[in-house]
Amino acid sequence: MPGIGKKSAQRIALHLLQKRTHDAQLLADQLSFCLEHLHTCSTCRNLCEATNAQCSLCMDTKRRTDILCVTETLADVISIEQTTAFTGTYFILHGKLSPIDRVGPEQLGIEQLLSRIQQEPIEEIILATSSTLEGNSTAEYIAETLSETSVRISRLATGIPLGTDFEYINQHTLFQALSKRTHWK
Amino acid sequence: MPGIGKKSAQRIALHLLQKRTHDAQLLADQLSFCLEHLHTCSTCRNLCEATNAQCSLCMDTKRRTDILCVTETLADVISIEQTTAFTGTYFILHGKLSPIDRVGPEQLGIEQLLSRIQQEPIEEIILATSSTLEGNSTAEYIAETLSETSVRISRLATGIPLGTDFEYINQHTLFQALSKRTHWK
Repeated sequence: MPGIGKKSAQRIALHLLQKRTHDAQLLADQLSFCLEHLHTCSTCRNLCEATNAQCSLCMDTKRRTDILCVTETLADVISIEQTTAFTGTYFILHGKLSPIDRVGPEQLGIEQLLSRIQQEPIEEIILATSSTLEGNSTAEYIAETLSETSVRISRLATGIPLGTDFEYINQHTLFQALSKRTHWK
Repeated sequence: MPGIGKKSAQRIALHLLQKRTHDAQLLADQLSFCLEHLHTCSTCRNLCEATNAQCSLCMDTKRRTDILCVTETLADVISIEQTTAFTGTYFILHGKLSPIDRVGPEQLGIEQLLSRIQQEPIEEIILATSSTLEGNSTAEYIAETLSETSVRISRLATGIPLGTDFEYINQHTLFQALSKRTHWK
């Protein structure tokens, strides 16, 4: 599991099985319950309750339907939701293009994304994949795939993160921040 | 000294004085030499050789004179030079506005910066102070001071640093990256 090595895993397992048998049962039950009652949203590939076809974000009628944000993971959706800067809908790739790991367009659901764009009144797609090599390739692949459509395509701004001193920033980021500087006046 | 605590300092001092007396003398001589032969460039406040009035960057006639970059520290100038994205001249504040540490406009040489703008054919000033609270205040103070002049003022782009996954980015940066997203198409 992420962030838990062999020793930590053993410590947690023994702790649960020896001292917290009640909690262990609770955890097991909750996990089974979630596995049974959660499935993938047919629209955005988010997790959603089994009783609904769509997740709570897709069902929310207050959200904008003209703007769609494509993310790599569910965690990214949570991060973006926390900013409150985005009120459109999402599409989760659950990964990024990586031929070495056999992750291609099918695994990322690109076909499904395309059919959404044809069916929904989407005007802009924000490709919010990470700014890593694979994240950029994935964004470029999707942009290429959508080049024939009339949808506007945007990418998150790159630059210096807020609250950061120069010494912690790599050269490439500084280069970008200089060339994409914003004009105040 | 930055990055060296009491114990490290003692270890280094004893190492130099007991095992490397020759190196210790060399270091002492070099330091004295530098202190004697280096002074502050009268134009940009960079370090420069005592035989010249200006530093090597200010004397370089190949550099653009219409664009000036204002940085907090000499280290920032080195970082920006390494990107090769900027070929103008610099002005080093040697700090940022911080009333609690008694650092005001005089300590940062704002008067000197103003007189440079009046004398030189500067068209744009990049306020490359850090994206911290104090860095931003300093940039805003300078922008305010220059508001009566015709000089264009810009700020380094803020956003997601290159090669970074979402989970390491704070909410405010993500907010900025979303609102200042770049349009591909």
